[in-house]
Amino acid sequence: MQIPKQASGVYVIAPTPFNADGSVDYGSIDRLTDFYAGSGVAGTTVLGQLGEAPKLEQAEALQVASRFIQRSKTPTIVGVSAPGFAAMRVLARDAMEAGAAGVMIAPPNTLRTDDQIVGYFAQAAAAIGADVPFVIQDYPLTFTVVMTPSVIRRIVNDNPSCVMLKHEDWPGLEKISALREWESKGEMRPISILCGNGGLFLDFEVERGANGAMTGYCFPDMLVELVRLSTQGERDRAHDLFDAHLPLLRYEQQPGVGLAVRKYVLMRRGLLACDAQRKPAAVMSAKAREEVDFLLARLARKDARARL
Amino acid sequence: MQIPKQASGVYVIAPTPFNADGSVDYGSIDRLTDFYAGSGVAGTTVLGQLGEAPKLEQAEALQVASRFIQRSKTPTIVGVSAPGFAAMRVLARDAMEAGAAGVMIAPPNTLRTDDQIVGYFAQAAAAIGADVPFVIQDYPLTFTVVMTPSVIRRIVNDNPSCVMLKHEDWPGLEKISALREWESKGEMRPISILCGNGGLFLDFEVERGANGAMTGYCFPDMLVELVRLSTQGERDRAHDLFDAHLPLLRYEQQPGVGLAVRKYVLMRRGLLACDAQRKPAAVMSAKAREEVDFLLARLARKDARARL
Amino acid sequence: MQIPKQASGVYVIAPTPFNADGSVDYGSIDRLTDFYAGSGVAGTTVLGQLGEAPKLEQAEALQVASRFIQRSKTPTIVGVSAPGFAAMRVLARDAMEAGAAGVMIAPPNTLRTDDQIVGYFAQAAAAIGADVPFVIQDYPLTFTVVMTPSVIRRIVNDNPSCVMLKHEDWPGLEKISALREWESKGEMRPISILCGNGGLFLDFEVERGANGAMTGYCFPDMLVELVRLSTQGERDRAHDLFDAHLPLLRYEQQPGVGLAVRKYVLMRRGLLACDAQRKPAAVMSAKAREEVDFLLARLARKDARARL
Amino acid sequence: MQIPKQASGVYVIAPTPFNADGSVDYGSIDRLTDFYAGSGVAGTTVLGQLGEAPKLEQAEALQVASRFIQRSKTPTIVGVSAPGFAAMRVLARDAMEAGAAGVMIAPPNTLRTDDQIVGYFAQAAAAIGADVPFVIQDYPLTFTVVMTPSVIRRIVNDNPSCVMLKHEDWPGLEKISALREWESKGEMRPISILCGNGGLFLDFEVERGANGAMTGYCFPDMLVELVRLSTQGERDRAHDLFDAHLPLLRYEQQPGVGLAVRKYVLMRRGLLACDAQRKPAAVMSAKAREEVDFLLARLARKDARARL
Repeated sequence: MQIPKQASGVYVIAPTPFNADGSVDYGSIDRLTDFYAGSGVAGTTVLGQLGEAPKLEQAEALQVASRFIQRSKTPTIVGVSAPGFAAMRVLARDAMEAGAAGVMIAPPNTLRTDDQIVGYFAQAAAAIGADVPFVIQDYPLTFTVVMTPSVIRRIVNDNPSCVMLKHEDWPGLEKISALREWESKGEMRPISILCGNGGLFLDFEVERGANGAMTGYCFPDMLVELVRLSTQGERDRAHDLFDAHLPLLRYEQQPGVGLAVRKYVLMRRGLLACDAQRKPAAVMSAKAREEVDFLLARLARKDARARL
Repeated sequence: MQIPKQASGVYVIAPTPFNADGSVDYGSIDRLTDFYAGSGVAGTTVLGQLGEAPKLEQAEALQVASRFIQRSKTPTIVGVSAPGFAAMRVLARDAMEAGAAGVMIAPPNTLRTDDQIVGYFAQAAAAIGADVPFVIQDYPLTFTVVMTPSVIRRIVNDNPSCVMLKHEDWPGLEKISALREWESKGEMRPISILCGNGGLFLDFEVERGANGAMTGYCFPDMLVELVRLSTQGERDRAHDLFDAHLPLLRYEQQPGVGLAVRKYVLMRRGLLACDAQRKPAAVMSAKAREEVDFLLARLARKDARARL
Repeated sequence: MQIPKQASGVYVIAPTPFNADGSVDYGSIDRLTDFYAGSGVAGTTVLGQLGEAPKLEQAEALQVASRFIQRSKTPTIVGVSAPGFAAMRVLARDAMEAGAAGVMIAPPNTLRTDDQIVGYFAQAAAAIGADVPFVIQDYPLTFTVVMTPSVIRRIVNDNPSCVMLKHEDWPGLEKISALREWESKGEMRPISILCGNGGLFLDFEVERGANGAMTGYCFPDMLVELVRLSTQGERDRAHDLFDAHLPLLRYEQQPGVGLAVRKYVLMRRGLLACDAQRKPAAVMSAKAREEVDFLLARLARKDARARL
Repeated sequence: MQIPKQASGVYVIAPTPFNADGSVDYGSIDRLTDFYAGSGVAGTTVLGQLGEAPKLEQAEALQVASRFIQRSKTPTIVGVSAPGFAAMRVLARDAMEAGAAGVMIAPPNTLRTDDQIVGYFAQAAAAIGADVPFVIQDYPLTFTVVMTPSVIRRIVNDNPSCVMLKHEDWPGLEKISALREWESKGEMRPISILCGNGGLFLDFEVERGANGAMTGYCFPDMLVELVRLSTQGERDRAHDLFDAHLPLLRYEQQPGVGLAVRKYVLMRRGLLACDAQRKPAAVMSAKAREEVDFLLARLARKDARARL
């Protein structure tokens, strides 16, 4: 099962569950996967930044990806960003063999010029093979690589195996509009645009033409509903739902700390047995946990489905 | 009038108003200043990033600062960040002579090590003179200079003229807690901490011990009320107010575009005659203006005082 | 006197001489200028990085530039890089009025994409006025802005007032070849290429098609001779001369420390009364001075004209 | 055989030889290793930046390292820098089991503050195990991580398994002096300091107290002789030798292109069967090859032992 053309809806970014001793908690992978399915997500992305991929050994990484893939009935995208094309190719080929629907590639933070970025994705596409669908991850806040809309267009038009943009530029609304306009004029091959950045602008991103979200917010069920409402033109209801979640969503979207918050909430929701991360890890203070509990309590009063 | 010890409340960051032809609109400076006073702000900060300072000639910069200072009954802080200490010293001395309460200094984005940062502020303090109170601007997202809590402690303890931290690290809640703990243990001289970063975490920052806000959000009246409620322990009312504004506040906090949004809203509020910026400027698309109008309409339904 | 078309030879980068008390030493400006003339330089560049420009007040900067201009019989280029176009325009107009031959502009280190760089130079050219000839400074090691050959071509072709490239990319030999090839094919308007980077590759840069050097190496007389020999095809004699100077030239080309070394040698050559810098300044240790003395002694044995 | 205490002399950085089809050329590994032994090097470092480590699959990397280790009679240091501690630990343990003398660790380019750098090396040391000797690679030009002398002192004093500094800060002479002074005062545990940076300052680095070199310059025999002469106080002879090689050494020290130059010269010396690199690779133009040939011819006239 490969990533469908013009994939839409929510591809949830899954964390990698660990036991308190640092071993992978495969039971929680199954529980998470089933929960995602029940939430109506269109797919899952594993081994991303959120998935603590660099903390896994090569064999572990494949095992984690495979477990998600086997349990899931929707497409699974596997993050294969690596410091070199050798490691990228191995993980991509292994993941596809294990049943992945495609892979996601982030540019290394040493790239600067337009040509360097376009050249990198051409080489990456060649390394993994033209038969492997890939997703561009465009996240300048973390990677410090700035891709203009025209760079993305070049990558898309040059590489038929590029099927999706994980859009998390900031600000990014005009970028969505620019890409969609080029598509409508036939100047760019149409691709799926799913938005990350913690979902912080998802309310407007769908209105601008995004197909949905790819993020790890701890209430993916809300994201699914939001995309549905927005796509159906129920603008105020979509924003009402979004606004109810925005205080927590914003709290989660703190660089570094965000993963700890997400694992904590997923644990409180009963989906992770434990919120442990492997080192190095930003740890939540007691005060931060209290703040999240406070936000969860407030959220439960605004969105009944968000009650724990 | 110098910055008071342990200044608290809201120091609003003022934009520099321009006419459509690019000349400074002094009438709007007066109108803004009177509005700020009526909003209950504790002070004003001018010639910051938001104030388009680098687009002003040296003489203009002083004229703009002076106009704010003369019209205002509360302290005015003047941004004096510059590529060299010569320009910084001139503007700082001129601004103080014109009645400024103090100056704000951001570190140049070439600094890397702890010692470089500490050394820079020592040299800056010497350059402007020990009699000029100064504010540290700690904004790694824009300046790429990362100051640990212990670096801030060194700057504060080394320089008696350092009176305030403009805190806009992200994430930053634990930094406030760390600094306050050192103060309570007598390991750091107490200073005022006012929070920027568009106010995106102001709801929790005050709870963590911040004295208030220093940001340019287009509803400073809300910020004043929020700080008051939070300081008085009205936690849920403070968060209710904050949450009502969060969708717009988040929209404003987009790097680059934010200034255009703020000038647009201030124009719609009748405070600026024109939302023009000098070049180079990020311009709002028609779609973006519609989105802000939509957010303003939604806000007006939640917070009656925010009706235009 | 404006920068001539296809300017060639050596434009020496001049330091700003200070007295021990930090005041500008105008007598040494005159002495330096006369020495440069005697060395056969084709022009002088002032207020560059080496000129400690950010440590000068605005009025001082203009006075320093004017003194060089008035004393000199060859063209003087004035560095006008600034954090904003307002300051850049003022200094550029004032310098041209004082008799400058043109100005030099470095890109701010926040630029990333090709379009950002091209857009910046278009706005800068508009700000200073189309009648002011300007030089692009391409120095990624210091500014972290990477300009591909095609970005430079776009700037040159878009802006008729762009007359010269100060080339100091590293590595940069292929860039010279690429630009010269485009010029020969008529794809790029011909401009002057003078090489900086301390002269570290000047031996080959002239062979690749550069018109000469723009750098502050403390023996500009050698640079003049090297460009002459190389242009006349005396390859081995050119390299012999270059190689004799390379140990000292390499020592000077240390980021940060280089200026101190240059001022020290110029003082030892009797051209500066004092090697003082304004703060902040990297200072030479006693050991470093001994090393430079050692290199000077060795150099004097290899190049008789380099005897102090 | 572990890295000896206060290791001195030359640890040559070895490239990874490839055949034209991209496969590893094990025969050339043997030839290189034997040549290094004949040159008098004290040890070898493999899988560094120069070794194209990220282009090797995990199993290949270990095979390459093992081949060097088995053939060599001197200590081999293995580069284990990786985006995560999981991959670093696996490679470090495997390499040590295969007979490595220690490992080398470069900081990831996302580190900024002193505490982040110190914390990173503490975690890395814990990950690979306290029984594995490690080398700090301090190369800000490439990694953008700036380590002050006091940061290095903290790492050394905190981690008994830290046995060596690969020093390639630029400028860096004062750093060597500062570290040696602390050692002599008993404020820092003595370690070996070997200098990289292509050897561009090796003439003075040994005089400042460095124990030798760790670099991949294509005439390691010269480096060995230089360290010997300098250590024995033959200052002028050491500099004469160094100066003869400086033009080529400087040419090799171009970021990105340097590896191509080194492989080309090693091929011309008969040590590599082929100068192929795996992609992505900077390729030498015909003009660049001619320039290197020219430098080699000139070198041969100055240093008889450098004749090909």
